[in-house]
Amino acid sequence: EEVNKLLSLKSLLGLDTKPAKAKGESNKSKENKKQPGDEGPKKFVLKTPKGTRDFAPEQMAIREQVFNKIVACFKRHGAETIDTPVFELKETLTGKYGEDSKLIYDLADQGGELLSLRYDLTVPFARYLAMNKVTNIKRYHIAKVYRRDNPAMNRGRFREFYQCDFDIAGQYDAMLPDTECIKIVVEILSSLDIGDFVVKVNHRKLLDGIFAACGVPDHKFRPICSAVDKLDKTPWEDVRKEMVDEKGLDPNTADKIWEYVQQSGGMDLVERLLKNEILTCEKSAVEGLEDIRLLLSYCEAYGVTNRVSFDLSLARGLDYYTGVIYEAILTGTETAVAAAADEEGSVGVGSVAGGGRYDGLVGMFDSKGRKVPCVGISIGIERLFSIMEAKALASEEKVRTTETEVYVIAAQKGMVEERLKLCKALWDADIKTEQSYKKNTKMLTEFQYCEQNGIPLAIIIGQSEIEAGIVKMKIMASREEREVKRDNMIEEIKKALAPGNSEDTTASICSS
Amino acid sequence: EEVNKLLSLKSLLGLDTKPAKAKGESNKSKENKKQPGDEGPKKFVLKTPKGTRDFAPEQMAIREQVFNKIVACFKRHGAETIDTPVFELKETLTGKYGEDSKLIYDLADQGGELLSLRYDLTVPFARYLAMNKVTNIKRYHIAKVYRRDNPAMNRGRFREFYQCDFDIAGQYDAMLPDTECIKIVVEILSSLDIGDFVVKVNHRKLLDGIFAACGVPDHKFRPICSAVDKLDKTPWEDVRKEMVDEKGLDPNTADKIWEYVQQSGGMDLVERLLKNEILTCEKSAVEGLEDIRLLLSYCEAYGVTNRVSFDLSLARGLDYYTGVIYEAILTGTETAVAAAADEEGSVGVGSVAGGGRYDGLVGMFDSKGRKVPCVGISIGIERLFSIMEAKALASEEKVRTTETEVYVIAAQKGMVEERLKLCKALWDADIKTEQSYKKNTKMLTEFQYCEQNGIPLAIIIGQSEIEAGIVKMKIMASREEREVKRDNMIEEIKKALAPGNSEDTTASICSS
Repeated sequence: EEVNKLLSLKSLLGLDTKPAKAKGESNKSKENKKQPGDEGPKKFVLKTPKGTRDFAPEQMAIREQVFNKIVACFKRHGAETIDTPVFELKETLTGKYGEDSKLIYDLADQGGELLSLRYDLTVPFARYLAMNKVTNIKRYHIAKVYRRDNPAMNRGRFREFYQCDFDIAGQYDAMLPDTECIKIVVEILSSLDIGDFVVKVNHRKLLDGIFAACGVPDHKFRPICSAVDKLDKTPWEDVRKEMVDEKGLDPNTADKIWEYVQQSGGMDLVERLLKNEILTCEKSAVEGLEDIRLLLSYCEAYGVTNRVSFDLSLARGLDYYTGVIYEAILTGTETAVAAAADEEGSVGVGSVAGGGRYDGLVGMFDSKGRKVPCVGISIGIERLFSIMEAKALASEEKVRTTETEVYVIAAQKGMVEERLKLCKALWDADIKTEQSYKKNTKMLTEFQYCEQNGIPLAIIIGQSEIEAGIVKMKIMASREEREVKRDNMIEEIKKALAPGNSEDTTASICSS
Repeated sequence: EEVNKLLSLKSLLGLDTKPAKAKGESNKSKENKKQPGDEGPKKFVLKTPKGTRDFAPEQMAIREQVFNKIVACFKRHGAETIDTPVFELKETLTGKYGEDSKLIYDLADQGGELLSLRYDLTVPFARYLAMNKVTNIKRYHIAKVYRRDNPAMNRGRFREFYQCDFDIAGQYDAMLPDTECIKIVVEILSSLDIGDFVVKVNHRKLLDGIFAACGVPDHKFRPICSAVDKLDKTPWEDVRKEMVDEKGLDPNTADKIWEYVQQSGGMDLVERLLKNEILTCEKSAVEGLEDIRLLLSYCEAYGVTNRVSFDLSLARGLDYYTGVIYEAILTGTETAVAAAADEEGSVGVGSVAGGGRYDGLVGMFDSKGRKVPCVGISIGIERLFSIMEAKALASEEKVRTTETEVYVIAAQKGMVEERLKLCKALWDADIKTEQSYKKNTKMLTEFQYCEQNGIPLAIIIGQSEIEAGIVKMKIMASREEREVKRDNMIEEIKKALAPGNSEDTTASICSS
């Protein structure tokens, strides 16, 4: 049982490409290591599609905890939520993702419209705004997206995965929505207790200004920007080679860019760059720097300055960003355990959130090109799951997959209907209750079930209890057993489950 | 604004095939009535795929309420949850749905595996059990499924819709899991306050026994069963015609079946049928009746007898049922409002949950055919949404789409950073707080925003308040305004928001 639990958690971590084992599985860990496809003579392949996985109850319990914290933060900031279909008209996604478009899943043409699975939540959001003529909204959207990427499931890269987006759409004053996105990332990452992190910020206009000041021709801004984007995982020498050899940039220009993009800091760096006479000839650079200056001053008011780094090397992949861009990176030692899962490469190992301002996207869906300015962040929730799962594994604490509070047990045979009546009374009083689906049960087995599943209370009835109008209540943690009047039963159970009492109980039961 | 709200709710109801309007949309209700495709000269079609829809914040708020109640019930019964991918290998779905297989969405062949979108949650669940060798689990799964059906969106029929499944897998004693499914349906439908309902039950073995007793040849059991299934929406004359003319049944046999399937009742009917000498010659009929007898006695213990009707005409469409089958039907006058949305036809108008026992499905996925007995129910959540939305419309109560508790307002210009500091303090104390994204705001506009959005408290600061170390707190419902020391602010806000206080506040604000 415990071996399966460990295997299951190991697989959660992505240390194993097999799907998570769930309870009831036999103990043959070695044999189960076989890759899908090795399964020998069988009429059919029993697997999930490439790059996808099932989630077992243990994983769902952790996922729910993480979602709850994230949603709580979004709601704390007054966000609404929307939902969109899992597929869109193919043409809705066309021309939004550049060369990544080849990763879009298409549906078969079965007559009717040509459809594709959504690739992210941002393009459907922009389509929603344009279609419903919404000009301002603060919304979150948590849903799965689909990419026919080369899955690296042991590195937390899947073809089906959750995105967790928060966006503010509307014509507002500079940097007020932009800074709130940073505050939200800081609140979420802090609440998850995953160690130190930093939110890198930069500005697309500043990057454009730097490129102009260094002498990059206008039409090479995007390709050069996408080369800069690789600096977090590729040494400068290689990026320079790409710029010069592949993208035909003058080597001097490349070296000038390098002088800029090595820099990071805070307000001091903004002020220094604002005194740079070459850079300040570029209107775009000045606009970007002034935005960053305002953003950093708002960060100060929000008390998040220590979490923010103005980093000139941050470029972000997507074409549609037009202003501030962000990326949150884990830097703490607590992530060591997660990094282990990443042993094959450190590609974007610490990145757990990213986003930016995209003022042009909604206009692409409007027949008159009317723009709706937007800024948003996307939380890399699969990564956070992996880390939380790794922590759960490391702590060796048992993850409860149910919330059952009371287990109903009969002391004798032939009492199944009495048990049902008792369960009914408890359910109707909103007490989370289970019982065996066997007519006759053994007390010892029943108590073991309670212990294994962290159920804090057992209620036991026998013929004599029924005649006396009582039940026996056993507190599993202390093994204390006492008689309670049936009329007071609900009250007594609620008292025993009340915080102070039940939390100790749960804690002592759950550490196994 | 209110017109849009009504239009939006009307569309929620499915009275309109256009997607819901969201806030910010212009007031041109007439023009917006155009069908998609009529939109005149445009570079592209701005719509969601056929049979799908977006959910606006108002709809999501109602959806969340319904989900919360359903999940609370599942958790009260000790269920775990799992998740499976939105698509499966095509062959996993093959041969499970009979002639409905034509409704399965396939993915395009882009190299690699052939995939299909899931058609229900039951087959992926059975695949999960077999693949992970899980032999017992009580799980719920709430997720979207996909059917290329002829959408009747105005009757609540979509191509993408939620299913909300609860299943108990495992080798257990007769009727204990089966009856709990009924108890769960009763709890959920009662908690949603949607009027009267009845859970019809029947048994596949009893139906088979009846068919045998009436002289239906073995190979015609399934076709005749599927004809009986139509009795809830088709008159007997037509069903008889199908049996006799299309399916070649002897007219006498058909008439004998009619004598049976007209009957419904409770334990009295079970006892009566158990005395029927023709029927009790069929082993299968006796087994079915004995199961139903036990089920009804357990229903009595669960106190749900008044909600259960043993109905011989219930047959259920799916092939894979092997034992008890259920269907919950709304019968109350409260559903009149929902029935309005169904004006085009009363096809399955009241059906809001269905399910049954399927002991053979998991074995279809096991290379050795090992069986895992299962029983489960599926809540027809889209139908329930429609009804809850109709109720929201009828009550004319405003649906809050955020949970914002406090709105921060500056009394003067140039105080944006002071506002940010105040918001930070509130967020960090877990108070749901919003503010304007404008640097300078007008008090009146701000108060209107609070009223329109049902925000119960406003906190106002100006230079003099900051100097005095206070804030002004305005209770929006009573318009009472008082000064609070900044040091006590959090405490005072929490006091003002505490139940007794805030609920009155919210109620009086929300009724508009």
